[in-house]
Amino acid sequence: MAETRQWRLESRPVGEPTHENFDLVTVERPEPGPGEVLVKTVYQSVDPYMRGRMRDAESYAEPWAVGEPMKAGVVGEVLESNADEFEPGDVVTGELLWAEHAVADADELRTVDPDLGPISTALGVLGMPGVTAYWGLHDIGDPTPGDTVVVSAAAGAVGSVVGQLARLNGARVVGTAGSDEKTAWLTDELGFDAAVNYTETDDLGDAMAAACPDGVDVYFDNVGGPITDAVWPLLNDHSRVAVCGQISLYNATEVPTGPRKLATLIETRARVEGFLVSDYEDRWGEALERLSRFIRADELHYREHVVDGFENAPDAFLGLFEGENIGKQLVRVADYDGDSSVQNGS
Amino acid sequence: MAETRQWRLESRPVGEPTHENFDLVTVERPEPGPGEVLVKTVYQSVDPYMRGRMRDAESYAEPWAVGEPMKAGVVGEVLESNADEFEPGDVVTGELLWAEHAVADADELRTVDPDLGPISTALGVLGMPGVTAYWGLHDIGDPTPGDTVVVSAAAGAVGSVVGQLARLNGARVVGTAGSDEKTAWLTDELGFDAAVNYTETDDLGDAMAAACPDGVDVYFDNVGGPITDAVWPLLNDHSRVAVCGQISLYNATEVPTGPRKLATLIETRARVEGFLVSDYEDRWGEALERLSRFIRADELHYREHVVDGFENAPDAFLGLFEGENIGKQLVRVADYDGDSSVQNGS
Repeated sequence: MAETRQWRLESRPVGEPTHENFDLVTVERPEPGPGEVLVKTVYQSVDPYMRGRMRDAESYAEPWAVGEPMKAGVVGEVLESNADEFEPGDVVTGELLWAEHAVADADELRTVDPDLGPISTALGVLGMPGVTAYWGLHDIGDPTPGDTVVVSAAAGAVGSVVGQLARLNGARVVGTAGSDEKTAWLTDELGFDAAVNYTETDDLGDAMAAACPDGVDVYFDNVGGPITDAVWPLLNDHSRVAVCGQISLYNATEVPTGPRKLATLIETRARVEGFLVSDYEDRWGEALERLSRFIRADELHYREHVVDGFENAPDAFLGLFEGENIGKQLVRVADYDGDSSVQNGS
Repeated sequence: MAETRQWRLESRPVGEPTHENFDLVTVERPEPGPGEVLVKTVYQSVDPYMRGRMRDAESYAEPWAVGEPMKAGVVGEVLESNADEFEPGDVVTGELLWAEHAVADADELRTVDPDLGPISTALGVLGMPGVTAYWGLHDIGDPTPGDTVVVSAAAGAVGSVVGQLARLNGARVVGTAGSDEKTAWLTDELGFDAAVNYTETDDLGDAMAAACPDGVDVYFDNVGGPITDAVWPLLNDHSRVAVCGQISLYNATEVPTGPRKLATLIETRARVEGFLVSDYEDRWGEALERLSRFIRADELHYREHVVDGFENAPDAFLGLFEGENIGKQLVRVADYDGDSSVQNGS
């Protein structure tokens, strides 16, 4: 029988995840049952939120079980279909497995249109990170022209879209990132008004204040920790903080502590709100339609950092916490012939 | 010429304020100019927010100047008037001075109707604290029937009103306070469903969890610090936190630190918002109308903790940080004959 490979959770990490937490196993390739589809993975996503799934704690999502294959956003090709909606050769995306092949119910999959762009974008700018950026910025951050918008992890899959959308909205945009290569990309290619390399400042608070002379009206927070501490004192009256992620804290082994922040909200009447892209399920299409229009108009640029080979998926995941990626971090698991050429992968 | 006394800011406190920071001076009684009114103070308010005015830091309000008289909410009698709107004998309220007499522009004063209740209530349940409770709860907290509402400093001037309004709204209400006398008042007289004396628990987190078996939908935060730390893990999905005050932190000499809290907001999609009652200036009357109706219907109870004698005003203020007051903390500066009897001062 045909075989496939899966990455399973070998053990729960304490602090920073390591290769020890992952186990590559070869198993029989599953066969689709009635209404199911067999998908060959072409690209697998790795995302910061996955660190939470490795934890044995109640969260908005079930934790991954030790000894079981992990889940991931996947773009792949349909190999076999027992569902009317799909036929072999279709490109689909969905929440599948860290696996070379997986079966899924037809209603767990969306069709990917290869004419909209490289199919990998269904995991990035035209997928979960893009939709996260779109609704988090517009629904929670709600920038108006002239506002100063700060986004942390601005060179990441979500942050890079947030900043460009905010600019399209008429805001002044400041990003934080962890290398000069990243900040150069933000200002030179994505049109950010300013970018701060937080690894190179003497005083992050001063650096942020200098980059935001009119204070901060919207803070899109992907990072938390000291970067957020530096932005907080700059919040303007009636400013909005959209809490999307806190990657700087995900590997903490003790409860992270820091300056207490709530008193600032009284003076400023600022609003701080967390959100999950899953709450925007019924507005997903609206975001994709707008994002793809911006891409076609060359107003929205993106990058992908592709790690080749399924066996390197843990490396790609661990790299997120090292800040190795510019743009969307992906694993290329198999070749795909349908992409005409990389479009706008600036 | 006639004289009057004022309390002036002698020096800025470092940490907890002391008597050293206050200076009682006798000065010539001021005379009202054109359009001005001379007011004899009957009651003077002391409030936690005043701690912020003693600080030499930018805030939503100007800091008090060293050597100058401090400001306070006052209820008093008009002695002389050069304004058409007022005549001697009228009872008025406004932001005046820590003083036995002060002049004010007519447009800085509101008329107090002694028929609505004891005139002291214009500084409490029918004044700034009551309006703060009303709009903070309804506009920011937005409780719906069946919600669990937690309020800290629940036996204070604001918190006691918040809790009763939330109950009138159909919520289950839990308060925190610092003595058994206070928690008994909350549950036995104000109808709170539960109250936690935070000074007597082995583990505040466990105590709050036990008091809130269905989690927390609205947290009205007057206190901050460890009490807020104990409430935070109980926040339900789409819960609301109204940040009204952080009295536990106001005397801190270093930046207070504590557990980082923002990650909780992602999972729960909770919203945290600060507010100032001054933003509700144009909806003040609406709140007072509702509050006085509840009082007349015996559905809203209040207490006042009255410190007698203008010379004891600093004691009354310092007592706020010791939690000495149940209900509104006031200083009686002069006698007033117009109150028929204390109504509903439960």
